Amino acid sequence: MAAYFGNVSAIAYEGKNSNNPLSYKFYNPEAIVAGKTMKEWLRFSVAYWHSFTYNGSDPFGAGTMQRDWDRFSGLDLAKARVEAAFELMEILDAPYFAFHDRDIAPEGSTLQETNKNLDIIVAQIKENMKSSGRKLLWNTANMFSNPRFVHGAATTSNAEVYAYAAAQVKKQLEVGKELGAENYVFWGGREGYETLLNTDMKLELDNLARFFHMAKDYAKEIGFGAQFLIEPKPKEPTKHQYDFDAATTLSFLRGYDLDKTFKLNLEANHATLAGHTFEHELTVARINGALGSIDANQGDELLGWDTDEFPTNMYSSTLAMYEILKNGGLGSGGVNFDSKTRRASFEPIDVVYSHIAGMDSFARGLEVAAKLLEDKVLENVVDDRYASFKTGIGADIVAGKVDFKSLEAYALQNNPIVNASGRQELIKSVLNQYLLNA
Amino acid sequence: MAAYFGNVSAIAYEGKNSNNPLSYKFYNPEAIVAGKTMKEWLRFSVAYWHSFTYNGSDPFGAGTMQRDWDRFSGLDLAKARVEAAFELMEILDAPYFAFHDRDIAPEGSTLQETNKNLDIIVAQIKENMKSSGRKLLWNTANMFSNPRFVHGAATTSNAEVYAYAAAQVKKQLEVGKELGAENYVFWGGREGYETLLNTDMKLELDNLARFFHMAKDYAKEIGFGAQFLIEPKPKEPTKHQYDFDAATTLSFLRGYDLDKTFKLNLEANHATLAGHTFEHELTVARINGALGSIDANQGDELLGWDTDEFPTNMYSSTLAMYEILKNGGLGSGGVNFDSKTRRASFEPIDVVYSHIAGMDSFARGLEVAAKLLEDKVLENVVDDRYASFKTGIGADIVAGKVDFKSLEAYALQNNPIVNASGRQELIKSVLNQYLLNA
Amino acid sequence: MAAYFGNVSAIAYEGKNSNNPLSYKFYNPEAIVAGKTMKEWLRFSVAYWHSFTYNGSDPFGAGTMQRDWDRFSGLDLAKARVEAAFELMEILDAPYFAFHDRDIAPEGSTLQETNKNLDIIVAQIKENMKSSGRKLLWNTANMFSNPRFVHGAATTSNAEVYAYAAAQVKKQLEVGKELGAENYVFWGGREGYETLLNTDMKLELDNLARFFHMAKDYAKEIGFGAQFLIEPKPKEPTKHQYDFDAATTLSFLRGYDLDKTFKLNLEANHATLAGHTFEHELTVARINGALGSIDANQGDELLGWDTDEFPTNMYSSTLAMYEILKNGGLGSGGVNFDSKTRRASFEPIDVVYSHIAGMDSFARGLEVAAKLLEDKVLENVVDDRYASFKTGIGADIVAGKVDFKSLEAYALQNNPIVNASGRQELIKSVLNQYLLNA
Amino acid sequence: MAAYFGNVSAIAYEGKNSNNPLSYKFYNPEAIVAGKTMKEWLRFSVAYWHSFTYNGSDPFGAGTMQRDWDRFSGLDLAKARVEAAFELMEILDAPYFAFHDRDIAPEGSTLQETNKNLDIIVAQIKENMKSSGRKLLWNTANMFSNPRFVHGAATTSNAEVYAYAAAQVKKQLEVGKELGAENYVFWGGREGYETLLNTDMKLELDNLARFFHMAKDYAKEIGFGAQFLIEPKPKEPTKHQYDFDAATTLSFLRGYDLDKTFKLNLEANHATLAGHTFEHELTVARINGALGSIDANQGDELLGWDTDEFPTNMYSSTLAMYEILKNGGLGSGGVNFDSKTRRASFEPIDVVYSHIAGMDSFARGLEVAAKLLEDKVLENVVDDRYASFKTGIGADIVAGKVDFKSLEAYALQNNPIVNASGRQELIKSVLNQYLLNA
Repeated sequence: MAAYFGNVSAIAYEGKNSNNPLSYKFYNPEAIVAGKTMKEWLRFSVAYWHSFTYNGSDPFGAGTMQRDWDRFSGLDLAKARVEAAFELMEILDAPYFAFHDRDIAPEGSTLQETNKNLDIIVAQIKENMKSSGRKLLWNTANMFSNPRFVHGAATTSNAEVYAYAAAQVKKQLEVGKELGAENYVFWGGREGYETLLNTDMKLELDNLARFFHMAKDYAKEIGFGAQFLIEPKPKEPTKHQYDFDAATTLSFLRGYDLDKTFKLNLEANHATLAGHTFEHELTVARINGALGSIDANQGDELLGWDTDEFPTNMYSSTLAMYEILKNGGLGSGGVNFDSKTRRASFEPIDVVYSHIAGMDSFARGLEVAAKLLEDKVLENVVDDRYASFKTGIGADIVAGKVDFKSLEAYALQNNPIVNASGRQELIKSVLNQYLLNA
Repeated sequence: MAAYFGNVSAIAYEGKNSNNPLSYKFYNPEAIVAGKTMKEWLRFSVAYWHSFTYNGSDPFGAGTMQRDWDRFSGLDLAKARVEAAFELMEILDAPYFAFHDRDIAPEGSTLQETNKNLDIIVAQIKENMKSSGRKLLWNTANMFSNPRFVHGAATTSNAEVYAYAAAQVKKQLEVGKELGAENYVFWGGREGYETLLNTDMKLELDNLARFFHMAKDYAKEIGFGAQFLIEPKPKEPTKHQYDFDAATTLSFLRGYDLDKTFKLNLEANHATLAGHTFEHELTVARINGALGSIDANQGDELLGWDTDEFPTNMYSSTLAMYEILKNGGLGSGGVNFDSKTRRASFEPIDVVYSHIAGMDSFARGLEVAAKLLEDKVLENVVDDRYASFKTGIGADIVAGKVDFKSLEAYALQNNPIVNASGRQELIKSVLNQYLLNA
Repeated sequence: MAAYFGNVSAIAYEGKNSNNPLSYKFYNPEAIVAGKTMKEWLRFSVAYWHSFTYNGSDPFGAGTMQRDWDRFSGLDLAKARVEAAFELMEILDAPYFAFHDRDIAPEGSTLQETNKNLDIIVAQIKENMKSSGRKLLWNTANMFSNPRFVHGAATTSNAEVYAYAAAQVKKQLEVGKELGAENYVFWGGREGYETLLNTDMKLELDNLARFFHMAKDYAKEIGFGAQFLIEPKPKEPTKHQYDFDAATTLSFLRGYDLDKTFKLNLEANHATLAGHTFEHELTVARINGALGSIDANQGDELLGWDTDEFPTNMYSSTLAMYEILKNGGLGSGGVNFDSKTRRASFEPIDVVYSHIAGMDSFARGLEVAAKLLEDKVLENVVDDRYASFKTGIGADIVAGKVDFKSLEAYALQNNPIVNASGRQELIKSVLNQYLLNA
Repeated sequence: MAAYFGNVSAIAYEGKNSNNPLSYKFYNPEAIVAGKTMKEWLRFSVAYWHSFTYNGSDPFGAGTMQRDWDRFSGLDLAKARVEAAFELMEILDAPYFAFHDRDIAPEGSTLQETNKNLDIIVAQIKENMKSSGRKLLWNTANMFSNPRFVHGAATTSNAEVYAYAAAQVKKQLEVGKELGAENYVFWGGREGYETLLNTDMKLELDNLARFFHMAKDYAKEIGFGAQFLIEPKPKEPTKHQYDFDAATTLSFLRGYDLDKTFKLNLEANHATLAGHTFEHELTVARINGALGSIDANQGDELLGWDTDEFPTNMYSSTLAMYEILKNGGLGSGGVNFDSKTRRASFEPIDVVYSHIAGMDSFARGLEVAAKLLEDKVLENVVDDRYASFKTGIGADIVAGKVDFKSLEAYALQNNPIVNASGRQELIKSVLNQYLLNA
């Protein structure tokens, strides 16, 4: 196997006092936490696009990434990237990966040729999966990079583009089946608008729903049983994206009878761009039975674009894992690093360091969250706080035994009302203790 | 009648070349636009809280407003405000007003006493309505100012507060019926959370839905036929409010079988706080059959709080009126000035100037929007842009006659794809011409 | 001459009621406003990078722009762009243009070769300037796109890069002299940091100041008398850019004794990214004698990145022109369209439409601002508002005749204090009248 | 002594494994870190306004705070608050406090009466200081709450208000001297503008500078040697505040020859409102010799107003203490908790919990920062990264021995340039290890 990431042997858990930057401090795949191994809870996935395709360019500058596979081109480049991907997964002991169709194979001059390119690479990936035991967390179709998608794909103003998008997703459902993908993701990169002035939002959303129903039907037809996931994002590249956040996406799914078919793939940076914390989005999904998978990364809340940084904020990883534990895990989903090393971290080894940073951050988050749950730290806070809904008038409210008249009668004789402190600062202080000591 | 606003006679339309600041330049109530009078389209409403209750305080300073009625207190103050309100409506020739229960009458030491205060003022208002012909656009219950609502009202953690809130809304439904309110509004000022760490979001939302169902049942029981409206806002005062925006609110309504009962009361400044344009929110509501009424104001997009400025941006008022015209008007809703004169505009006459500024801005917006529609400026852009969905494969897509296989077959033989420019800059330039010349 | 922009003859003023989208409605170059011609006040400039180099790519997708010159490559492409640039300037009757070194000529494999490429194109440009009478508003060095500038240029962590940057600017000063550039601009695209954790801010700023002093010295040495300008921007591409806004840049210039040498080139979208209105930045520069030139565009305040839209908001163009008129014009500066047609406006004609939109917006802004000044609309507001500083204790304060003791003595006997309303809403309403009727 | 905070004895260090929420886990006043005691480094200060004056109101609701001293009014209330303040300082073992004039004593109907009220309370405070050993970190004048300051104080449009403000600061300088204040702070709560349309920015800034010079002169005259500090904030309550951020304030100070007199009092939440990290503002101040004191709190980056939360984010407290250690401490400054318990944390004990949370967060930050410095973790990163400026051409650059010609000569023969990775992710991972293990 080529050594695209330098002379790096497999990374292992060495414990939090290790000074070796090329080791895990917290991620110990076999360690038992809350009744399962860390690897079963975390199901880490490497994102093909950030680590093998992205070259470090930004709107103001060219690529910076030093990637030895860049000496190839065309299908040879695609093949080299497959080797690099499996090399990195082995180094990191990451069980999963995820890709867009255009990450893994180049487009040809026709759709036929493009699909042929895909077939070649899919075969190579399948072989690598077999020999390595790595698995495909999810695949998806890139329907935003090619200029044909300038006005969207399933929400385009051009019916020809819509047909093309359908063909592209059809192929990816087949690829997903071929590779045993556990999920299939829809991220609507340009499914939105640049300006309302030239947009028929109703037609676009109707078309989007038709598209999803056809996708569902075709997956059923070919026996592809992966969980379907929608990944919300509020904006960027478009001015407005229809899957703005978890709640907006649920509204759409409910309005078009798709809520039984789809769950959500939630990304931390997309949450903050929408004005939410990551844990907010996870909670909304969880209580609606729609928490499917996560894209682990972090944004810079003082910047207004998707920075896709590797997740190193342990407050965020702890609260994310707390929701995931309450959800009983992610089911067929996983923790996919939709994260890129900074443009200035351009050496191959930075990709390794970055993943270690992210995996350790989530492993520590898992430990802390499990301990919080074991000690019922927040559970007890919540139980106490809502205790009034467990007896008396509160229990009647929850049981649906009251109406405005009976409630008014109660209120008229109940004076004064006494509230209790929410204790936010104390809770945050306790959280700090758990972060440091759990 | 007391002259709380100085020696100001009724404001009338004097045309855009008038130099008299105490006249309308565009709002001519009887002028016909798009087949109806301006006053029928616009249904202007004065907001009790901003013009008669708000004293000019902000988090860093005390009230500044010079209001002659402040020489009174208690119920006398409440009565003086009623006179001031009807005086202002007469000056402005505004047909509607809107209030929270606590705007019009002071709380007593018990709910009984509070309701008695309400009854006194409601009777006075009713008489004024009768003699003046002014109408109540909507009323609502203030369930956020009193300390008892520190943890919310219908989403409180305290069942006693929930009962109190129910009693309060029950009374307001009765008041609404008494005064012939055309709508009833729910704005969830503290229906949200300060921190997820102590919050049971699922229970809170279930309770909120129960509350709304009880409200619906009680209104039916007493024969109060007003349109129910929810007013979305993303945050402030709470860290997160459950009715974040139009889409989030629709998701909630659909999930709890309330979508047939409620429409939306949309506010410009709440839209921008949620990261949307006002016209976006109006469009989302319109295409979902949920555009009920609007709170006309504007925010400062460089500030992060609800500034509730009077709406003077004619781009925004034009695009708002464009959506309202496409909706066939607002039905029982109206254009309510949920706007306050700046803290530094503290003289009574500033309240008059402010409303003139807002009413003229919307009247001009109405004229421009009507002309845009009459000339099919944007309609033609949209028709052309989506023309491919009217014939051939596009028509088949819309008719549901295709599946992924037939679309793939189409795509495989359709190469290359040709898109057309979206023409955003040209459209914006034309919009400028219409704004200036329509 | 090649017809890169289709069969478009020179655009002329046809007046605001013209329906021809390929005409000016407000920009009448020879029309007299406030004592000068429109073209003398506005000094419009076309930006090479947006209209001739930018291909429509964004972080999520490839280029979309249809540009006939793209059939060429290397120096031939560079030459074709020169022809396209002068064709567009002629169509628009735009007197000025502006470029980065790398916009006009491709880099070679060595700096020597790169400079040779520049010389060839500079000669071609010079000839075109001569024959057409178009002039160079400013040139600058692109020190952010090439990967060598990954850590900055004059604030790099790598001394070799610093030397390279110096060589690059040296050449551009020579080019500026050769072409008679009226200004020379420094925009610090990567002069800032990605993370403070690896940054020596003090050394970087010291080096930046050294760089500017050397630039000043070299310009003097070669007799290049252009006005030096710094263009502030708060962030993007870097996390933080040192020239955050006008005030920050002034602080730097004052701290390093550079404030006599530099003025500011202010951009609307950079202002909003920094949390300011455009007019704020212009005012700060004007009252500090540092208003040099402007980059005319507009951002989307609900998006967090530099959208560089063509300026169509006439509120903003009016207030910008108001400041420019108060400044007595821009001196050697101008109104440079640092604006790009949207990625979805990919046809060549969109570049023409876009410039018409922007030029008309600024021409209308000029008309309105001039009328506001002629009628002393805001001047009178300000005069009245600060009248107390013209007599008595106020005049003594301004004259420096008081101290805390005399002021206290005054205050102790002056009770109560009476303030006057700020009249913000009335002023905004009047501004609307002027926008529509001036 | 009254027991306003319940039956809480003095809080002591019990170590990080203590489950007692009423103990310090990290703040051990006498523990030696980096050669000094924790209390010497941290110099904690309690903010009078948040803990003793603030009642829990917000723009949408009335006060919620349960404060036993609220049974008093007028001067009796003021006296009770003094007792409460010294009680809390004793409980927390906090050595310092800070106040605005209007926090400690009520205004009277004349300035004379107001000053008399102040004198009474100042005498009481002085006595308490003497008996307790607590010290005044800084005092300041509240020139934003009273309606007279509606248009500002030292930047007002009304000369009478300016005189009043001068009298108010004069008195506070005297009070500061009387109480031995170690610093005097200027926060320009309404020193800015609501709209540029009615504002003479130049006159306002000139007047502000005159005001500061007079303050300086008067302090000198009375022998009050406290360090003068300006506290930047970008906005709120005003649309724009002149002391936007550290750099803007430095620019002002330099422009008006005040930079030798003033240092900065930097607040975390004000930094984030200006679009900066706290550590950015601290760095800017430090490298300009202007780091005076800090207001310790934190904002919510997803909210757009000053939330003034107690600082619990240990990433932020670590990086803040890192800058403070590099500065050799804060000199006469300190760590002042300009933080308020949430409106929903309304019990007196929450004030204690909140301060423990904040003090522990800073104490842990101090420990981690000291260990980072001791191990030269970031210092080594920076030394390596800028090594090229220590020899050869880099050393010549720093020494000022080069010009554009010699740099060009160097660049022309130096090909290719090789950069090194910035290693951001590795550094952040190491920072996490230090946070958890230091």
